[in-house]
Amino acid sequence: MSDAPPTDYPVNAVNRVKRLHERGAYDHATVHAILDAAALCHVAYVVDGQPYCTPTLFWREGERLYWHGSSASRMLRNQSEGEPVCVAVSHLDSLVLARSGFNHSVDYRSVMAFGHARIVDDADEKARALAAMIDRFYPGRWASLRPATEQEIKATRVVGMTIEEASAKVRAKGIGDDEEDYALPIWAERIPVRTVLGAPEPCSRLVPGVARPEGLAGYRDGRALEAALTEAHAAQGVLRVER
Amino acid sequence: MSDAPPTDYPVNAVNRVKRLHERGAYDHATVHAILDAAALCHVAYVVDGQPYCTPTLFWREGERLYWHGSSASRMLRNQSEGEPVCVAVSHLDSLVLARSGFNHSVDYRSVMAFGHARIVDDADEKARALAAMIDRFYPGRWASLRPATEQEIKATRVVGMTIEEASAKVRAKGIGDDEEDYALPIWAERIPVRTVLGAPEPCSRLVPGVARPEGLAGYRDGRALEAALTEAHAAQGVLRVER
Repeated sequence: MSDAPPTDYPVNAVNRVKRLHERGAYDHATVHAILDAAALCHVAYVVDGQPYCTPTLFWREGERLYWHGSSASRMLRNQSEGEPVCVAVSHLDSLVLARSGFNHSVDYRSVMAFGHARIVDDADEKARALAAMIDRFYPGRWASLRPATEQEIKATRVVGMTIEEASAKVRAKGIGDDEEDYALPIWAERIPVRTVLGAPEPCSRLVPGVARPEGLAGYRDGRALEAALTEAHAAQGVLRVER
Repeated sequence: MSDAPPTDYPVNAVNRVKRLHERGAYDHATVHAILDAAALCHVAYVVDGQPYCTPTLFWREGERLYWHGSSASRMLRNQSEGEPVCVAVSHLDSLVLARSGFNHSVDYRSVMAFGHARIVDDADEKARALAAMIDRFYPGRWASLRPATEQEIKATRVVGMTIEEASAKVRAKGIGDDEEDYALPIWAERIPVRTVLGAPEPCSRLVPGVARPEGLAGYRDGRALEAALTEAHAAQGVLRVER
């Protein structure tokens, strides 16, 4: 037995990729890279047998995911035991037009992460999470902001979920027609898809003389959103949470 | 009582926007526009109390959504009664950097649609759906493809869900700081986010002389994905499904 930390998420009936399993991966590096390249996730949860799917901003620290909740949140109204949730993140990389309908596809990278969502009650973890929520996207920004008021901290619920199982699924092969179909006189192509930043628009009410902080340099016109997010995440270092 | 068809989805405890309800909308036009601008949705469903969130391509016909299933699908292994699902679609429009952590936000458009997922068994509806699945994205393309084989049709499961409830949630206000915070010497900005197409890459094995079909003209370098998708959807006309 080794004491080295695991580098893969455990695979079981919950997270095993069943459909096209050759596209599946369970290692931390693959799963985390897909998560850290995204700002938005979709959280699935159940209330009285009814599934909900809520888009929300999220961020990762080690094997723990965080997102916002509110006191009005359906998800958290009954969370004493920890609500089972599934957090999904997807990147669409291209549209794939093949020679048959069956082989039309998309290239993508996605993660499904499973765990139990709990409100972060611990005052220290909550305070740190509120700062990390900003700094994960915009390195160093929290310290430059008007400090949070007690009322704001009260009104913000932070939800944490330790990843218990996760799977990544990646398709990156472009056109994959049946061999005999390549001889057909049918157009086929791959259309790349990218999510990019536009030119930042400074607030029209800025106090004169205030300069754009250096920590935002990664957010520039035409850059891929995921490149900026991945860079910002790395700039925060790896903040592993004690459990 | 009017016989005119309803223009709004019903609002009840399931789909009422509880958090920041001023951002909510329930009218067909708003909900459908957000759906039709997207290729990818996230479907939440429940198996043995465990929520799952699966990204998948989808399309809309009237008040009905369709997506792919496979025989290996967890979601559909027990669907005789129709599985309750929630389909979510999100567009991230900008990152909003305010003068306080609390007022940091994003502009976005999202929809949550609720209903019961059922495999499309009816042969006519399935045949039509397989064609619509291609033509909704690429107008007129189905007729130009190598016809589907019986085996391919068998291997493809089409899932249909009539929207029973739906809500849209939109934030489009950019920076919204507390009034007194505008006087602070803190940088604030809005960063637009767009998902765009790259230059289409023709298959390297095209038969000489095959030209790019006119139906793909909407997919061109630099165009917003959602503009191409919305245009393609409109080109299909409104195919209302008899229920």
